[in-house]
Amino acid sequence: MPTWSPSSGTRYSSAAQPKETWRASNLTTPRDEKDLVQLQSGIEHDITLGTPIGLLTDLYPRPSHADWTYLEKYGVKASSGGGRSSARETIGRVAAGAIAEKYLKLAHGIEIVAFVSSVGKVHLPFAPASQVVDEDDDTIEDPLSPEFCELLRTVTREQVDGQATRCPHLETSERMIKRIIRAKESLDSIGGTITCVVRGVPAGLGEPVFDKLEAKLAHAMLSIPATKGFEIGSGFRGTQVPGSKHNDPFVKHEDGSMGTKTNWSGGIQGGISNGENIYFRVGFKSPATISQAQQTAQYDGTPGTLAARGRHDPCVVPRAVPIVEAMASLVIMDQLLLQNARKTAASLLPPITTLPPTMVKPPSESQKGKESQQ
Amino acid sequence: MPTWSPSSGTRYSSAAQPKETWRASNLTTPRDEKDLVQLQSGIEHDITLGTPIGLLTDLYPRPSHADWTYLEKYGVKASSGGGRSSARETIGRVAAGAIAEKYLKLAHGIEIVAFVSSVGKVHLPFAPASQVVDEDDDTIEDPLSPEFCELLRTVTREQVDGQATRCPHLETSERMIKRIIRAKESLDSIGGTITCVVRGVPAGLGEPVFDKLEAKLAHAMLSIPATKGFEIGSGFRGTQVPGSKHNDPFVKHEDGSMGTKTNWSGGIQGGISNGENIYFRVGFKSPATISQAQQTAQYDGTPGTLAARGRHDPCVVPRAVPIVEAMASLVIMDQLLLQNARKTAASLLPPITTLPPTMVKPPSESQKGKESQQ
Amino acid sequence: MPTWSPSSGTRYSSAAQPKETWRASNLTTPRDEKDLVQLQSGIEHDITLGTPIGLLTDLYPRPSHADWTYLEKYGVKASSGGGRSSARETIGRVAAGAIAEKYLKLAHGIEIVAFVSSVGKVHLPFAPASQVVDEDDDTIEDPLSPEFCELLRTVTREQVDGQATRCPHLETSERMIKRIIRAKESLDSIGGTITCVVRGVPAGLGEPVFDKLEAKLAHAMLSIPATKGFEIGSGFRGTQVPGSKHNDPFVKHEDGSMGTKTNWSGGIQGGISNGENIYFRVGFKSPATISQAQQTAQYDGTPGTLAARGRHDPCVVPRAVPIVEAMASLVIMDQLLLQNARKTAASLLPPITTLPPTMVKPPSESQKGKESQQ
Amino acid sequence: MPTWSPSSGTRYSSAAQPKETWRASNLTTPRDEKDLVQLQSGIEHDITLGTPIGLLTDLYPRPSHADWTYLEKYGVKASSGGGRSSARETIGRVAAGAIAEKYLKLAHGIEIVAFVSSVGKVHLPFAPASQVVDEDDDTIEDPLSPEFCELLRTVTREQVDGQATRCPHLETSERMIKRIIRAKESLDSIGGTITCVVRGVPAGLGEPVFDKLEAKLAHAMLSIPATKGFEIGSGFRGTQVPGSKHNDPFVKHEDGSMGTKTNWSGGIQGGISNGENIYFRVGFKSPATISQAQQTAQYDGTPGTLAARGRHDPCVVPRAVPIVEAMASLVIMDQLLLQNARKTAASLLPPITTLPPTMVKPPSESQKGKESQQ
Repeated sequence: MPTWSPSSGTRYSSAAQPKETWRASNLTTPRDEKDLVQLQSGIEHDITLGTPIGLLTDLYPRPSHADWTYLEKYGVKASSGGGRSSARETIGRVAAGAIAEKYLKLAHGIEIVAFVSSVGKVHLPFAPASQVVDEDDDTIEDPLSPEFCELLRTVTREQVDGQATRCPHLETSERMIKRIIRAKESLDSIGGTITCVVRGVPAGLGEPVFDKLEAKLAHAMLSIPATKGFEIGSGFRGTQVPGSKHNDPFVKHEDGSMGTKTNWSGGIQGGISNGENIYFRVGFKSPATISQAQQTAQYDGTPGTLAARGRHDPCVVPRAVPIVEAMASLVIMDQLLLQNARKTAASLLPPITTLPPTMVKPPSESQKGKESQQ
Repeated sequence: MPTWSPSSGTRYSSAAQPKETWRASNLTTPRDEKDLVQLQSGIEHDITLGTPIGLLTDLYPRPSHADWTYLEKYGVKASSGGGRSSARETIGRVAAGAIAEKYLKLAHGIEIVAFVSSVGKVHLPFAPASQVVDEDDDTIEDPLSPEFCELLRTVTREQVDGQATRCPHLETSERMIKRIIRAKESLDSIGGTITCVVRGVPAGLGEPVFDKLEAKLAHAMLSIPATKGFEIGSGFRGTQVPGSKHNDPFVKHEDGSMGTKTNWSGGIQGGISNGENIYFRVGFKSPATISQAQQTAQYDGTPGTLAARGRHDPCVVPRAVPIVEAMASLVIMDQLLLQNARKTAASLLPPITTLPPTMVKPPSESQKGKESQQ
Repeated sequence: MPTWSPSSGTRYSSAAQPKETWRASNLTTPRDEKDLVQLQSGIEHDITLGTPIGLLTDLYPRPSHADWTYLEKYGVKASSGGGRSSARETIGRVAAGAIAEKYLKLAHGIEIVAFVSSVGKVHLPFAPASQVVDEDDDTIEDPLSPEFCELLRTVTREQVDGQATRCPHLETSERMIKRIIRAKESLDSIGGTITCVVRGVPAGLGEPVFDKLEAKLAHAMLSIPATKGFEIGSGFRGTQVPGSKHNDPFVKHEDGSMGTKTNWSGGIQGGISNGENIYFRVGFKSPATISQAQQTAQYDGTPGTLAARGRHDPCVVPRAVPIVEAMASLVIMDQLLLQNARKTAASLLPPITTLPPTMVKPPSESQKGKESQQ
Repeated sequence: MPTWSPSSGTRYSSAAQPKETWRASNLTTPRDEKDLVQLQSGIEHDITLGTPIGLLTDLYPRPSHADWTYLEKYGVKASSGGGRSSARETIGRVAAGAIAEKYLKLAHGIEIVAFVSSVGKVHLPFAPASQVVDEDDDTIEDPLSPEFCELLRTVTREQVDGQATRCPHLETSERMIKRIIRAKESLDSIGGTITCVVRGVPAGLGEPVFDKLEAKLAHAMLSIPATKGFEIGSGFRGTQVPGSKHNDPFVKHEDGSMGTKTNWSGGIQGGISNGENIYFRVGFKSPATISQAQQTAQYDGTPGTLAARGRHDPCVVPRAVPIVEAMASLVIMDQLLLQNARKTAASLLPPITTLPPTMVKPPSESQKGKESQQ
């Protein structure tokens, strides 16, 4: 039975033959987690068979604290601790996401890269959180910086994994390291944000009302443990930018395709992808488990002091990068299958000849060429 | 057939007999939209029958611009314009949400109130967007302000609707009005944020992995037109606060119930409600349709200038408040039904006697009393 | 707004422009049901827009008796009677099925024809219900008769609608008429069966475990009011036929395609269509509402006598033929969309070269030709 | 990790501590299938934790023939043969069904017993397949026999398992044994039917339109491999019985509850359970794999002869009895959870006081007593 080793914090290049291993840094707890995944079913000779792919990991959740909310919900809880509330649960997402990523790459050339964009107050310099300065002055509103757009256009997983922080901007990465070490030394923890870009997504993905593409992405990201926020494109910052600056004008790209000059929209308009790069940002809170003593109460309300034993990650954001990528892959894969199914169903019908031109999509340049040849 | 009049921007108090009407302010386009909703089925004598409730509005989408992404998606588009990409689509959400709200109030005493927390750069003073000052100094991190917590605890729909901006803080509301008027006068538009609080939610709602309560809320909010971001509890700001400050210590409340002293979590932990107030923030971009001329391109890529005719809302955030409340109601209702179903199913089984005490939820104070009497 | 008139008992040829009208016979209650269907949304210029198609009928359920099981279920019931338990509910199925039928015909050339195969004990002669004669004698087991196979291969809707009974076999139809008149004259009712054939379904439809194609068809058919049984292919009769006779040997058809010589399987093997004609039989009980007095009890258990007033159909089977066709269309449409989505997704991947020949579908004759040309 | 041994043909009494073992008879192929099921998750100390229950069997499908329809569907197939088209797939159903059965018994006292009602032409004498004798004579229509009703009321799993055929009627069982041996000796196979009764189901289960209780049961049963037909209550036979005989009059039962005198309906009316015993019949075709040589064709259409090697079950019907019970359990469990959720949600609302009495369910006798005491 084939196996591979996708730790929750590990990226790998292939569903069937993953080779990369997790490069533990001194920023996160060293773990001897031999996360072998057994491919139980659905794959032979590296080819999927169309039947369900069963993945089994040979590890069990580490003993950890029990969640009050779990007890409230179920009335009982696992003796071994948090169970599914442990972030170890995310291994299933990463393993499944790897299969989706591989399909997206092979069938559509889609690339998904996430990276750490802030740790605590240490931010990538060219994509700052919004600063309120003079609320009546729109002129000082800084645009989407060229550096940030360029980063989104070019960043690779190799560049990201080259830094222990998984922040591909070296100078920022070093300041992040200091920030994490400071948290570690004070027996404390710190959060951060991850930015993810999806390149090569065709226009037309996403459903128009309840299952807008950004809604599905937000759902997926907020289902990752410890997340507190989600922004698509310009995000909260975009709420402060006047429409005249925020609108993305349409242009014809150099390759002849239609597109937009700027990308405040983040590649999605009206819930549907427009062919530009999709990018979004996810906020992770500071880890709850810290080693310093904290005042709290027992289940019956008796006040007391709690100090976690053992070693704890002061910052989980670098480890969450592959999880963000995996969840993005699963969302894009779902939407691609839906939209391709719709297009296939429509393609089997006779051509539409009765609609006025304003109601029909104009043929693309390449289609025009083909048609004139016939 | 009973009818009522829930404009997308209208709040009403009862599914069967709505009485309130939309107070158009001079901040938004006056519209003569008699949004009568016909109750087609499922209700008689003000009582639901258990069968589907059919709601029919007697209006049709106003002619508006066509979306490029729609054409890309479907290949054809409605002649009348945006169709379902029009925010007029949200009337169905508000009508359905009204039924959910009524149930939540009657059956569980749950209250849901949303309000405008920022317009452009004009923010509620006591819930500021995070400001990066000294990235190495944790001491200046301001806490969740008492004013903000008090507002969440007490704000009513009457207070919100008392302001044309739907911002219940008077001084801020006046500055918001100025900001909106400035956008209007410059033929431009401006975005903003809405904060929503859900009070009285029992502990235990939400599913532990993919359908965490915050994930369902994020999905619902990002499905509202023009939204760009979602934050639960401390949100992105919480990513900058060390764990030792961000953790919410457990305390026994005055009424004997367990709870938390602070509420950075926003009422949800590990994806499951903990009984504290749930609050979240939603970002809305500046409206795309503005009256000033914009450089853009036609479908075939030819550059040109576009200036929208007619009157357009310079800021839609005040109108979106009831939509946020409606979507929150639908999410909470779904999760309540799920969790109550689970609890009912479990309650029919014999009592659990074989588990060690650490695996079972301790009986509440009131249950203890009952048991000792027996 | 376009309208059309698909009574529950009416067939029509086109979703957008139905022209046929219900030919009421003297066998069923004359009804002045102007079942106009309004196309509320999703269609313009006879073309679907990709958005939901809203269909609204302008009639309401006729007053009728209330169902005890509804009261048990919901605790309350509609004042107007059976509500959704009325067979009038099926109009929605027929209207939606018409759209599916049109797609199946246009995109795949699939034809669906149902007909009445028995009324009471009056059966089509060449597809008899199984008769137990000598349980130790397998030799007398009659095969699938050539007449029955020929009927399945050729029967048209015109032939079916040409008979008041919707049984295309004239001699049998006349005996059925006598049987129905006998029920009518004795203020009684009688049931019957409908056989349905689906021609032109490609191989590969249906899911392998829980959603086998016959399981989906059974679900759909048993959801039609008054149904009591479902058989696919040889059905219950097939349980008495030894495997050596029941197995359908593979043959190469005259057009070069693979197929089976007999068709006991009814076009489905292992839950998946095999390209042969799919046929199944549905049993309808005798209508419950009859005019003769019946002994029964009131809600509180007090015995009493009930005699329905008004006119009642003594046999609803002829009216149910379009409903069976509609539900079959919806099931086949769903499965086609699913399977075509799967095939499209696979087609975008590079060709499989690493599998041994025994694991890959051999290329078809036409594909072979193409490949050798390259 | 706890394990238990539920062969697909094995019944067991408890999810957590199954003790019974499969009593292989000389009628079915002896198999040394140590079907240990590992409880991977969701259970501790014999108590479910509310989290998903993972069940893993440590066996793999036996090599068997490949299905043509699978190749058509997926384009590729597993090298090891039928894969999920093997009836070995049903072990998952039986294991999951055992958990549902246990809940139904503990929480509601529901009992589910299935038994073999025919093998080939050998039928239980008092529930014969319909015989067409004189199609104009309704008087000779035999009723639901008292023996059959008594059997449904009393039959136990012990009685069923006491016979190698799993037919609890001794004389019939012996004739069935002879029939199966005859099939075996002639290297052939034979089919049969299974009847299943569900006792103690409360009124109100099932959804009114598409998910009628009988529709869900039909779906579940037709998803079992080799099934060809499904009948609820009187089934196809009921189509020949006039309404005046087929209607089930309401009576007050001895325990004061409302019920019906006869039970042609099979415990379901209008898609919703009425509190009477639910019973249905499922038809299984003769197994396809037989040892005698058969004329057929290869994948490319070349004619040839196929004779299966190895030992094959001449009749699988006795082995399918636990599968029918398991699928019935899963359907009833789903519907119970749905209906109890609905009732719980309604119970939290204030009492209904505004409806006329004809629209409200009358209070039961016991409720009346309680109310008069207050």
